[in-house]
Amino acid sequence: MTTPTLSQRGQTMPMSAMRKLSPAAQAAQARGVEVIRLNLGQPDIETPAEFWNAVRAFPEREPTLAYAPSAGRPELVRSLVRYYRDAGIALAPEELVVTVGGCEAILFALLACGDPGGEIITPEPYYSNYAGVAAIAGMTLAPVTTHGEDGYHLPGREAFEAVITPKTRALLYASPGNPTGAVYTRAELALLGDLARDHGLFLLADEVYREFTYDGATAASVLHLPGLDDHAVLLDSVSKRYSACGARIGCIASHNAGFMQAVLKLAMVRLSAPALAQAGIAACIDTPPGYMETARAEYQRRRDLVVERLNAMEGVSCRKPAGAFYVMARMEGIDAEDFARWLLSDFEVDGQTVMVAPGAGFYATPGLGRDEIRLAYVLELEKLARAMTLLAAAVARYRREQR
Amino acid sequence: MTTPTLSQRGQTMPMSAMRKLSPAAQAAQARGVEVIRLNLGQPDIETPAEFWNAVRAFPEREPTLAYAPSAGRPELVRSLVRYYRDAGIALAPEELVVTVGGCEAILFALLACGDPGGEIITPEPYYSNYAGVAAIAGMTLAPVTTHGEDGYHLPGREAFEAVITPKTRALLYASPGNPTGAVYTRAELALLGDLARDHGLFLLADEVYREFTYDGATAASVLHLPGLDDHAVLLDSVSKRYSACGARIGCIASHNAGFMQAVLKLAMVRLSAPALAQAGIAACIDTPPGYMETARAEYQRRRDLVVERLNAMEGVSCRKPAGAFYVMARMEGIDAEDFARWLLSDFEVDGQTVMVAPGAGFYATPGLGRDEIRLAYVLELEKLARAMTLLAAAVARYRREQR
Repeated sequence: MTTPTLSQRGQTMPMSAMRKLSPAAQAAQARGVEVIRLNLGQPDIETPAEFWNAVRAFPEREPTLAYAPSAGRPELVRSLVRYYRDAGIALAPEELVVTVGGCEAILFALLACGDPGGEIITPEPYYSNYAGVAAIAGMTLAPVTTHGEDGYHLPGREAFEAVITPKTRALLYASPGNPTGAVYTRAELALLGDLARDHGLFLLADEVYREFTYDGATAASVLHLPGLDDHAVLLDSVSKRYSACGARIGCIASHNAGFMQAVLKLAMVRLSAPALAQAGIAACIDTPPGYMETARAEYQRRRDLVVERLNAMEGVSCRKPAGAFYVMARMEGIDAEDFARWLLSDFEVDGQTVMVAPGAGFYATPGLGRDEIRLAYVLELEKLARAMTLLAAAVARYRREQR
Repeated sequence: MTTPTLSQRGQTMPMSAMRKLSPAAQAAQARGVEVIRLNLGQPDIETPAEFWNAVRAFPEREPTLAYAPSAGRPELVRSLVRYYRDAGIALAPEELVVTVGGCEAILFALLACGDPGGEIITPEPYYSNYAGVAAIAGMTLAPVTTHGEDGYHLPGREAFEAVITPKTRALLYASPGNPTGAVYTRAELALLGDLARDHGLFLLADEVYREFTYDGATAASVLHLPGLDDHAVLLDSVSKRYSACGARIGCIASHNAGFMQAVLKLAMVRLSAPALAQAGIAACIDTPPGYMETARAEYQRRRDLVVERLNAMEGVSCRKPAGAFYVMARMEGIDAEDFARWLLSDFEVDGQTVMVAPGAGFYATPGLGRDEIRLAYVLELEKLARAMTLLAAAVARYRREQR
């Protein structure tokens, strides 16, 4: 008898930076400690009534919850075409495939643009699940480091060309960025576009946070860039936009017909994205514009509070991000992973503590991010203020205990 | 400027055998022809009221549709533990991860047991998406051929050992089988178990059709086999059981803790399976036992009708399958792919035609399955009878036209 061995990828795949401390959080809760979660981008804003109304009405028309077409239910595809048109992006229905959340859009993109052994260039810090998706695809991330002092904006062309190899298949970026909140300028996007064109690479743009920009900033789309039809791929979450993360509806779009044909074959393998959620999300296009405006204004207030309070903490600093609902903060001299665990295992004030994501999981370069944490400001202001008070007390105590 | 090239896997990935003719079917419909679909295992039976009630009640308790835990919503995990206990399978909650349909369970299993270049042995004909999932995982299928004359039951140990190589990572099978409907005997499962033990392989069991067995047959589970805790992995669809295919809820379970840890990391990469559907499916455990009994009796009647009518057609033959809701039929001298296309492009009687899945897509061995079709008997008897009348007329006319 021989015991089977796990795959290398199964053994070495990184734990999600946002979720790896979940067992420690559950243990804290089991001790009666309330854990205020700043680790996950799970908005607290209510899912629009349009979603719930469509879901409730569903069984009257379709008492059997059947598979959806692999590319998406027609009413959702129509609704997305309309949504993108309003965002200045002209897409034909066949240039778009509905995915199981934004994550599947990333997976399909990597699978369609590269084979095992291929490399994907991405600015770091990056959304930590990029590493997991790349591992699933048998590919590796080649990072280009960005820095908090620069607001995590991109370095020059040389920094990218230094990591391009014959194995490079694509450039992958998020703007507005997770975990950085950086919104790339037109010039930065043009640089990425030039690199893609000059080196024959796909340009994969994670635009999940398109609507969440502050102080009048706007996020340009990869599909706004001219002359990149064969290169540009848009990766999106639809359910996140409408505060319905659990719906798991995203999409992938490109003007490259061969690329979309490969994506459709991949989509057929998993048959269908969730059908009921698709019907609900399709209805969200009719959410009044005020819904998004209210959400944006609320996030901007939250961002302002969090950034101000973080910078007031001893040895903690961050720049004000222009988008998304995350902030990376540097905590000088603190081992962020140890600190994040300690928050859950040894710290509490009046029965409460906070949960944050340690920074190292958002970098591929060993050693980077060890003194950084990522916070998601997706809780109401009052709770967020309390979390900041707890975090300030924790930083002070952690430093005092000289860990 | 260089145009980026698609990945090899993106180019060579097979089209879903069940869905590749969808454009031809849409063209037929556009001409006003009604297409009776026997190509997809999409049951027509209504999703239970328990599902819809749970979905309708959801927003009252949870107005924000949040991510579910990566391993599944606790009420669904509890409900699944109870369901499996009733099926004689003892599982701890952490031995089970909820997946996005049965397809994701297969993908996670392949990713956790092998790396790119790895091989998976599977009896053919197999569920055609196995090939797509293997391509995504960078792995290949090594087929062991089974034959219609044997009711697609397994050959002896030598046939398996002939294809085992140092790259072999797992044995993958479905019982009750799709597309064959074969239900393996205890002796067949014991053979697979012995092979897995002797050669240090994972034994991946697709048990999606567990409940759908006829004439008193019962399907044993891989988790009923003794001494295979490190090897045995159960792959399941939950939504299919309750005629809610569009819910996209499946699960993967094993007593191998290291394996399940790898699966959990994979699940974290995609954050969560659809949350609303999980709440609905969790409630389905309370569906009265009569729901499944009624469904089973109905499928048995359908199977009997389809098998009788197929065997009455000129040069068409099939054995009566013991489970699932599919049948593979041999059509002597007919090119099944051409026939299936012709059904959609050139055949109709009174404005109706039928859609079937050509057999070759269910085989890895080139040349096999070319004279076979797969039918799913998931329509009501009357419609099924009409489809059989159409198919008989089509076979006769196709033969007459000597294509």
